[in-house]
Amino acid sequence: MKNSNQKILIIGAGLCGSLLALRMAQRGYQVQLVEKRPDLRDITQDAGRSINLSLSDRGLKGLRLAGVEEAALKLCIPMYGRMIHDAKGNTFMSNYSGRDGECINSISRPGLNMLLLDQAEAMPNVSLIFNKGCTHIDLENASATFEDYNTKEEVTYSGDIVLGTDGAGSVVRKAMFDNRKLLFSFSQQWLTHGYKEITIPATEDGGYRTEKGALHIWPRGEDMLIALPNLDGSFTVTLFAPYANTKYCLDNLTTPEMVTQYFSQEYPDAMDLMPNLVQEFFDNPTGPLGTIRCSPWHCYEKTVLLGDAAHAIVPFYGQGMNASFEDVFVFDEILNKFEGDWKTVLSEYEKARKQDTDAIANLALDNFHEMKEHTASALFQEKRKLEMTFEGEFPKEYFSKYSLVTFNEDISYHQAMTRGRAQDKTILKLLIDGKLPDTMNTREKLTVVQKQTNAMLHESDIAGKLK
Amino acid sequence: MKNSNQKILIIGAGLCGSLLALRMAQRGYQVQLVEKRPDLRDITQDAGRSINLSLSDRGLKGLRLAGVEEAALKLCIPMYGRMIHDAKGNTFMSNYSGRDGECINSISRPGLNMLLLDQAEAMPNVSLIFNKGCTHIDLENASATFEDYNTKEEVTYSGDIVLGTDGAGSVVRKAMFDNRKLLFSFSQQWLTHGYKEITIPATEDGGYRTEKGALHIWPRGEDMLIALPNLDGSFTVTLFAPYANTKYCLDNLTTPEMVTQYFSQEYPDAMDLMPNLVQEFFDNPTGPLGTIRCSPWHCYEKTVLLGDAAHAIVPFYGQGMNASFEDVFVFDEILNKFEGDWKTVLSEYEKARKQDTDAIANLALDNFHEMKEHTASALFQEKRKLEMTFEGEFPKEYFSKYSLVTFNEDISYHQAMTRGRAQDKTILKLLIDGKLPDTMNTREKLTVVQKQTNAMLHESDIAGKLK
Repeated sequence: MKNSNQKILIIGAGLCGSLLALRMAQRGYQVQLVEKRPDLRDITQDAGRSINLSLSDRGLKGLRLAGVEEAALKLCIPMYGRMIHDAKGNTFMSNYSGRDGECINSISRPGLNMLLLDQAEAMPNVSLIFNKGCTHIDLENASATFEDYNTKEEVTYSGDIVLGTDGAGSVVRKAMFDNRKLLFSFSQQWLTHGYKEITIPATEDGGYRTEKGALHIWPRGEDMLIALPNLDGSFTVTLFAPYANTKYCLDNLTTPEMVTQYFSQEYPDAMDLMPNLVQEFFDNPTGPLGTIRCSPWHCYEKTVLLGDAAHAIVPFYGQGMNASFEDVFVFDEILNKFEGDWKTVLSEYEKARKQDTDAIANLALDNFHEMKEHTASALFQEKRKLEMTFEGEFPKEYFSKYSLVTFNEDISYHQAMTRGRAQDKTILKLLIDGKLPDTMNTREKLTVVQKQTNAMLHESDIAGKLK
Repeated sequence: MKNSNQKILIIGAGLCGSLLALRMAQRGYQVQLVEKRPDLRDITQDAGRSINLSLSDRGLKGLRLAGVEEAALKLCIPMYGRMIHDAKGNTFMSNYSGRDGECINSISRPGLNMLLLDQAEAMPNVSLIFNKGCTHIDLENASATFEDYNTKEEVTYSGDIVLGTDGAGSVVRKAMFDNRKLLFSFSQQWLTHGYKEITIPATEDGGYRTEKGALHIWPRGEDMLIALPNLDGSFTVTLFAPYANTKYCLDNLTTPEMVTQYFSQEYPDAMDLMPNLVQEFFDNPTGPLGTIRCSPWHCYEKTVLLGDAAHAIVPFYGQGMNASFEDVFVFDEILNKFEGDWKTVLSEYEKARKQDTDAIANLALDNFHEMKEHTASALFQEKRKLEMTFEGEFPKEYFSKYSLVTFNEDISYHQAMTRGRAQDKTILKLLIDGKLPDTMNTREKLTVVQKQTNAMLHESDIAGKLK
């Protein structure tokens, strides 16, 4: 079989690593997939920490490539928009799209990971190895040493190529960072906010305590709650709040009284749905929110980073997993062109992909501000309403920034960002200046928006050339 | 004496650390200044590596504060502009300013460092300690352990406060990076170019082989040479070239033949001035060019980074040392306001300074492209000529970006960047569009440029608010 004499060592069997292992095995490579944690199919999941993620078109494109889209969709709960919960307890739905059927999906992270591991394991040319943490990497020779979590024994594996899919805290990336010869550019940027997960349990008969088909947001300026549904009727709620410098910052939420006071003041309606709020608040860890960028992703024509190891992003566009699955899709496209020439594959992959993962990192940071502040503002809502009308009446002519990023997987993140930002600025400016009055019909409004967006794009194109 | 009960531990006795030690001693603190290298006043300088830097108004402001400006100026050679050497061997001077007397200065790095060490040592409350490399820092308790270079003995020093001035490779910063509790944001970005130093020796009677009062540039698109004069009649030349992917990239310049071929083709006039070119090319190391940004600069109300340790930049604006000396000036201003309250001093210092060091980092990167590419272009020269005319005829009304950054030390780097970039874009656009014809007089041209610059600044102000 083609490629069967080539051995691929994949470090990290999370979402990206397990999909990549499956796909590389389908291409005929001998795949060794090594993971530091235990096999999550063997351990009981903590029912209180059913972490979910949003899966959308770019992620589905990667799953489809490996033939697992249908199986994944069975684990999904569609979410058609944002359900905004304002400070007075009012709710209103803001759809993600004005077109029919466009939605994102809530999916369990461990559930999807288990599916991908099962599929990879079913391939005769994949070997799965758990409980082995990487302690050293020989980048020049594509070999890595691992310590067994239980026996503490060391073992060294090697391949023709090492694919580093070991997540935001990647040890493969750290080996590149520590290698002074590589001139490894690197950045880690932390938000001054952290997050904490809490559960809205299912009702006694297994039903949902609030609207199932939406991503819920309680925007409160500096803080917010969000909630995504789980298949078992529960929701996973995430609080995002500053670590310091506000009355109810995470550093100050140290007593049950403070937590109760904070939630009853800011999120009374959500609090009613979370009977174990205080207990969970103190049991669950507080997580930081960071963006990691680096370059080069590859070295010595032997090793390359994919997924969060190369580009960890904040969760606010729901694109972290989708970007990682799209990595697999792009890597596969590059293999179609250059298979057999690893040097070219690795450098062309980064060249094809880096600009797009930088773009989604920036978009995710933008969306943090949009979600916690702007979703509650009248101007923002007026803009979304107009965009939904455009998408509804002219579904093939208008795509909001959110649609470009989330539902238009045939254009790149970078293109989506550039056009989407220009549209947003244009519409906001036109609304502020009163230049989209009710006397205009939708077609007339769309024409003005498109014309001015294109002019802005043309201007910044010129500015870029002058720079 | 005021502050005499407070002990300051300064790690790193380079330019920033030694000026800071002097100034803190003048304020009455007990200062311990620890350096990993030997005392450079005791060792013979390698005559072939007389490294020079450019000293300008912001640096002089810091030296003036500590009473060492006059002594430093005695070590300076004024440079009034860029002497451009084109590919055909033609030269022309492009002044730094249209105002009289505005210049930057070439100064020997070791010469200035020795001056500052002498001045610091003359203070009764400064203790200088050399040959001790920091091996561990206890950030929470403001103490640090050092190993003696010769005896290998360990010693621990502590202070009320630790000031980390240990340069781009700072171990103080690394301790903050490694401390996961701090959520330390960090970025290191390397250019794909490296640099190499070569000497133009003095003539036999100690004269200069080319114009003394200029910074020389040989711009060649992707590569360039620059040269700054030394007091002994020599010049220090620096080659900037890509590591890879061009015919004469650094990775390819591996034989005397290749080096000779490269220089005789690209820099024949400079080559005539460098009799030891090949020897020095292979004797001297190749250095990388990086930008380092981080935040927070301080932690535990006990430690703060200053100078390159906090913000290393590429050398293309000649502002690295100047920014570090301005750090000392700003830190001193903050002490004037908040002395006695270290928590506030450290956080207010970063708040006051961070935006400006980020700005000069960006400006220095911009200038890399300007120097190697644009200085040779007709459009760029037309712009500079116009700006010189503005500055000459209306010296109090117009300041080019270069002047704002270099000669206007009363406005911040960030203000200089914002206004300077808008001016540059405006003038280039007006020139391209033919909107500054010869039929207009200088006053009319200036009015158009100022009006459109202000409009652009107003626009981007609005865009910032809409974002």
